[in-house]
Amino acid sequence: MLVSFTAEGRAFWGVVGEGGVIALSPDFPQWPGLREVIAAGGMDLVLEAAKGRVVTHREGAFTYDIPIRDPEKIICVGVNFPDRNAEYRDGQEAPPNMSLFVRFPRSFNGHGAPLIRPPESAQLDYEGEIAVVIGKGGRRIPEAEALGHIAALTLCNEGTIRDWVRHAKFNVTQGKNWDRSGAMGPGLVPFRDPAQILDVALTCRVNGAVRQADRTGRMLFPVARQIAYVSTFTTLVPGDIIVTGTPTGAGARFDPPIWLRPGDVVEVEAEGIGLLRNGVADE
Amino acid sequence: MLVSFTAEGRAFWGVVGEGGVIALSPDFPQWPGLREVIAAGGMDLVLEAAKGRVVTHREGAFTYDIPIRDPEKIICVGVNFPDRNAEYRDGQEAPPNMSLFVRFPRSFNGHGAPLIRPPESAQLDYEGEIAVVIGKGGRRIPEAEALGHIAALTLCNEGTIRDWVRHAKFNVTQGKNWDRSGAMGPGLVPFRDPAQILDVALTCRVNGAVRQADRTGRMLFPVARQIAYVSTFTTLVPGDIIVTGTPTGAGARFDPPIWLRPGDVVEVEAEGIGLLRNGVADE
Repeated sequence: MLVSFTAEGRAFWGVVGEGGVIALSPDFPQWPGLREVIAAGGMDLVLEAAKGRVVTHREGAFTYDIPIRDPEKIICVGVNFPDRNAEYRDGQEAPPNMSLFVRFPRSFNGHGAPLIRPPESAQLDYEGEIAVVIGKGGRRIPEAEALGHIAALTLCNEGTIRDWVRHAKFNVTQGKNWDRSGAMGPGLVPFRDPAQILDVALTCRVNGAVRQADRTGRMLFPVARQIAYVSTFTTLVPGDIIVTGTPTGAGARFDPPIWLRPGDVVEVEAEGIGLLRNGVADE
Repeated sequence: MLVSFTAEGRAFWGVVGEGGVIALSPDFPQWPGLREVIAAGGMDLVLEAAKGRVVTHREGAFTYDIPIRDPEKIICVGVNFPDRNAEYRDGQEAPPNMSLFVRFPRSFNGHGAPLIRPPESAQLDYEGEIAVVIGKGGRRIPEAEALGHIAALTLCNEGTIRDWVRHAKFNVTQGKNWDRSGAMGPGLVPFRDPAQILDVALTCRVNGAVRQADRTGRMLFPVARQIAYVSTFTTLVPGDIIVTGTPTGAGARFDPPIWLRPGDVVEVEAEGIGLLRNGVADE
């Protein structure tokens, strides 16, 4: 797994090793970040270079950053699992096309860092998701070829300030973009086989209790269709991230809703992609 | 006026001169783009350096780029003038907060380049707006101090593929992000006085006929409130752009609607900020 991390105020990228991480960015100065590694098709070379190396930074001596620090775009797919549409309880039919919104990189923390609850709201909520990282760019990518454009997979906690999602008549921008309200990581798992995304289990737990559990095979808009649809209007480039949608069971679904509180631990896990764990802290 | 432009495949920034532009980026290698000029507080120095210089590139020998090529964020305010709310004719009350959505830089062309109509839709529409460029970053900026965070003003044609705005249940992302469907520019007018934005005339013409005309003093959510509200949830940084909303009179308002067609010329003009002119072309 390829990771971005910070140690002693310095930014690195590398791979996960036994008990820590192996910094490789000093050996590849031509690639400032994992975005450049991906754009150059360098993931295999990097993984090869890590073989036999010992960890340079032990657990505790570094903090994880979001894997791609500066993607050109992070596009999120909304309402993409059965029952999620019903969660909105507005009497409307399921839409013919996917709902899309945008998050800025600064709305995410890395693995292990807390989701930040701002003083303006008590309604911090989790949404466990799988994120795909584009390796090969393109426009109007045919659905049949779309999975071939994925470089890697990672996990996302698409943390949301729920009352701010409905602040305005249209669009969820402000509820989805609180600084460090979500998380992404721990790192990038190279994508080599469609089976890694077509029907894998995705789970989200709060303090050990399962709150969301579904399979990607039940997505209303599968990942290949997401890539085809998004690339219809915008050119995808290496490092772009599509956050593919969350199963039913966010805290907003409960009656009364159960919001995250400081001290909670949220875990997003998916088969073959790993485990993203974050605490919750007040700003 | 500070501008970004391309000549013979090379990217420059500089200022507008008599009959062309004066390239200044070669003299300031520490600032790769106008974003860095603004972040360093260098606008005055650049304007001073331009004095007495002759144009380096005459009209026709260069093309305008969007003024800030790589802003961290472009946040657009929707439904922000009287009657616009009524245009949606959905029977809902005006909302207590502004609607916000995000555009990617690649959804804009520079001054003089055409708005691009894709083969997927005949519903290319114009929206004339003023855009503010953040100079001094911040979080939770008080409304009373907000205008002090603006570095410059520019114009925006927030070109929209109207049928794709309503593709999904929530969010307008896909209707607002077609590659080169909008425009921004021609360049940056330094912001020195609140009078430059508080109540200025904003006009949009198609083939010479006025389609939109209003004053910023009639905004439902004035610019200072926009900056205060947006910075509540996300940290604004130098070079960030807020597109402040369009007056009533987009093509969608007419019955039947009047969409843009190849050969049309759209002009967005605002007092003291200049004139943004773009043709329309099929992709």
